[in-house]
Formats: sequence, C-alpha cells, structure tokens
Amino acid sequence: MKVLLFDTFGTLVDWRTSLIATLTDFSRKKGRLLPAAEMADRWRAAYEPMMNRVRTGKLSWTDLDTLHRMALTELLPEFHLSDLAAAEIDQLTFAWHQLSPWPDSVAGLARLRRKFILAPLSNGNFSLLVDLAKFACLPWDAVLGADLFKHYKPDPETYLGACELLKTAPAEVMLVAAHNYDLKAAQALGLKTAFVARPTEYGPHQTKDFGPEGSWDLVAHNMIELAGLLGC
Amino acid sequence: MKVLLFDTFGTLVDWRTSLIATLTDFSRKKGRLLPAAEMADRWRAAYEPMMNRVRTGKLSWTDLDTLHRMALTELLPEFHLSDLAAAEIDQLTFAWHQLSPWPDSVAGLARLRRKFILAPLSNGNFSLLVDLAKFACLPWDAVLGADLFKHYKPDPETYLGACELLKTAPAEVMLVAAHNYDLKAAQALGLKTAFVARPTEYGPHQTKDFGPEGSWDLVAHNMIELAGLLGC
Repeated sequence: MKVLLFDTFGTLVDWRTSLIATLTDFSRKKGRLLPAAEMADRWRAAYEPMMNRVRTGKLSWTDLDTLHRMALTELLPEFHLSDLAAAEIDQLTFAWHQLSPWPDSVAGLARLRRKFILAPLSNGNFSLLVDLAKFACLPWDAVLGADLFKHYKPDPETYLGACELLKTAPAEVMLVAAHNYDLKAAQALGLKTAFVARPTEYGPHQTKDFGPEGSWDLVAHNMIELAGLLGC
Repeated sequence: MKVLLFDTFGTLVDWRTSLIATLTDFSRKKGRLLPAAEMADRWRAAYEPMMNRVRTGKLSWTDLDTLHRMALTELLPEFHLSDLAAAEIDQLTFAWHQLSPWPDSVAGLARLRRKFILAPLSNGNFSLLVDLAKFACLPWDAVLGADLFKHYKPDPETYLGACELLKTAPAEVMLVAAHNYDLKAAQALGLKTAFVARPTEYGPHQTKDFGPEGSWDLVAHNMIELAGLLGC
C-alpha cells in the first residue's frame, strides 16, 4: 500500500455544522431570521440530483462550485431570499471552501502522511479542495478534484484516474470514506477500502452509513485509530 | 496576487548534483568506473529534444518519466552500459523522483506558503512531482504536472491550464523560475514573474540564465529573499 485517498465532505470535514454557522452569521448580518440548519440540509440535498444529471449525461460537465451555486439559487425563494445580490450568493457558495475538519482529521492525516502518499478524492473541484485544505490544514501530498477527470464519484473514471495519475496499481491504493456507496465502487475496481463512520454528518436527519455495510479492509472510529491500524 | 507557481527542476531542486550522486553510487555498486558528471549532463541534454518532439506533435503525448527512460536507454551504449537490466534502468530513471532541494528552497517556500497558494508548474509528470515533494519536503498546497495538461512548457496550455484549475486570473498568479524562457512565456499570457538565478544548475557548463533577461516583476537571489520581497 502506497497511497491513501480520502473522501472529503463528511469524511474529513463537518460540512453541516460549518454551513449552519455561516448561514447563522449571514442571517444576523442581514437582520433576517433564517432557519440555518434547515437551509443547510436542503442545500446539501439539492445538489445531489444535479450531480446525478451530470453523471447520466443529462447535464454537460459542471463543477461542484457551479452546482452549489445553482442549488442555492433554486432554494432562495423558499427562504424568502430572492432579493440576494450575486455577490452575496457567491459569498455563501464560497462557504463550501471553508469547512471545519472533524477533531481527529488533521492529527490522523499527519500521522498517516509519514508512511503514505495522501490525497483527497472528492467530488469537489480542484480549487475548492485546495482552498479547503488551506483553511482546514489538511496535510495533502497532492490534490485530486473531480474536474481533473470530468466525472463524479462513483464513476470509475475518478478512482482509476487517480491511480493512473499517481502511477499506482489499484491494489496499492486505499480509499478512506464515511460512505458505503463510495467504498463499494472503489472495491469493485480493485482498490483497498477503509470505513470511518461519521454518525453525526447529517445531524439528527442521518439515516445511513452508521456502520460498515460491506467487507471493507479496515474499519475505524476516526482517523487517529486508522493511523494506528496502519502502523503509523 | 493569490498563487505562486514554481518551476521545479533547477529552480527548486539541484538535479545535477543529485544525479551525479546517484550515478556515482550506481557506478560503485556495479564495480564499473562511470563518468557520472558527464553522464548526468548528457542525460539532461538528451531529453530536451524529445520534449520538443512532443511539443511539435512529432511524438504523441509522452510523460517525463518515459522521456527520461528513453533518453537514458539511448545513452547506455555510449557509456558501455548496454547490458543493464530493465529494473536497473527503471531504478536510475527513478533518481529524478529523488532530487535534493537547493539550501533555501524549503525554508523560502514555508514562508511564502503563509500568504499564498503554492504549486509546482513543471514539465515533470504528476506522480514524479508528488514523489519529489515528499522526498525534498517541498510544502505544496497542490501539485500540477504536465500530464494534467498533456502539454509541456512553454506551451500556453500549461500556464493557462494551471490558472483555470485554480480558478485564478493570470494577473493574480506569479511564476517563479530560474529560466528566462519560462518567464517570457508566462508574462506573454498575463502572469506575474519572478526570477531566481541558479548559476550552478548546469555546473561548469552553464551558459545562460545567470541573470534576468526580461522586465520581470521580481528578481531575487533565492527563495528566502523572494519571501521577503513578497512581505512574507
């Protein structure tokens, strides 16, 4: 094993708590009472179907920044925010570039990095992931964004594209993720798999991914435990 | 200014001294007297025409690892090494993944990274640059290799491709290089430029790039001085 690839949203960073904080702050500054948690959840739920439209070819390649902005724009009337300026929509969309890591993420990655090449393999675009790494202090050896492959996970082009760029055989690469669907796709292509549960990712609304649902190579409670399992 | 891109071979790492060390070591292990410095210089000189064949479309896209290997293979008879095993050729080619930084490179980059996004923009392939960063402790925020663009510098696709991936306007990006030709190409596309002379890059055979040959935005003697000029 030479390379560890990491899903990022949910696996390493707590997008929900971070978005709620940004929306609460925005709400205060605008002097309007916004249901920040509901808005964060609706926003996250809205971009997934858009991503699937890209995956099924109904929408030409569109990166995650753009999908985030489209999803937010569609939601605005529902939250009585149709009057937002373009710059305000941009600013809110940029919240996805500044998400806080889970408490174990940075320490765990730092240990894992001593022994392995570490990179995110996320549906985020390259620039988003670079900003996010800078903000959250994620110690990457390289950044892999979906726009490098013009495909979203779980399309095979993402996992295999990462292996190809790193010139590493799938069997020498492990995907670390908090989502079973992601590990399933990676395993089918010959990658190793590690599951790290993030049972509060979706707050009180979480319905899945509380535990491993496949024969993953490793299962850990957090990134520090994973580092231990991998002898780092 | 948001992003600093760095030429790598010669600008940040001393490929010549490192290759000579590897070839000297190889020579000792094989029990054959090899003119290590001459071989390193011939090797470096041999891959440049190959790269130009790719740039002019005479050779389809071929990454730098492969060009390094082709160039070495062609040189072997000249150095009475035609009997080398494939694994030995691979091992020597891998020397380009393990080059030592100039004494100021790591400290300078660490300071610059506090204020800017740092990435290599090199003719090296992605995997080579990832290995090199790990070996030489180059603190990148992201890695950009020529294989992401399937073009070699000074093709515009490399400089503009980097700006596009980072979603940053050329005017907000500075190329740092020890080679005037590289800065000239970047400047023509609207990037900012910084020249750092490396007068010993080619050892006693250096014939050019002793000083700035254009109106570059900044000129520094090393990366630490550059950090000072940029207020880091």
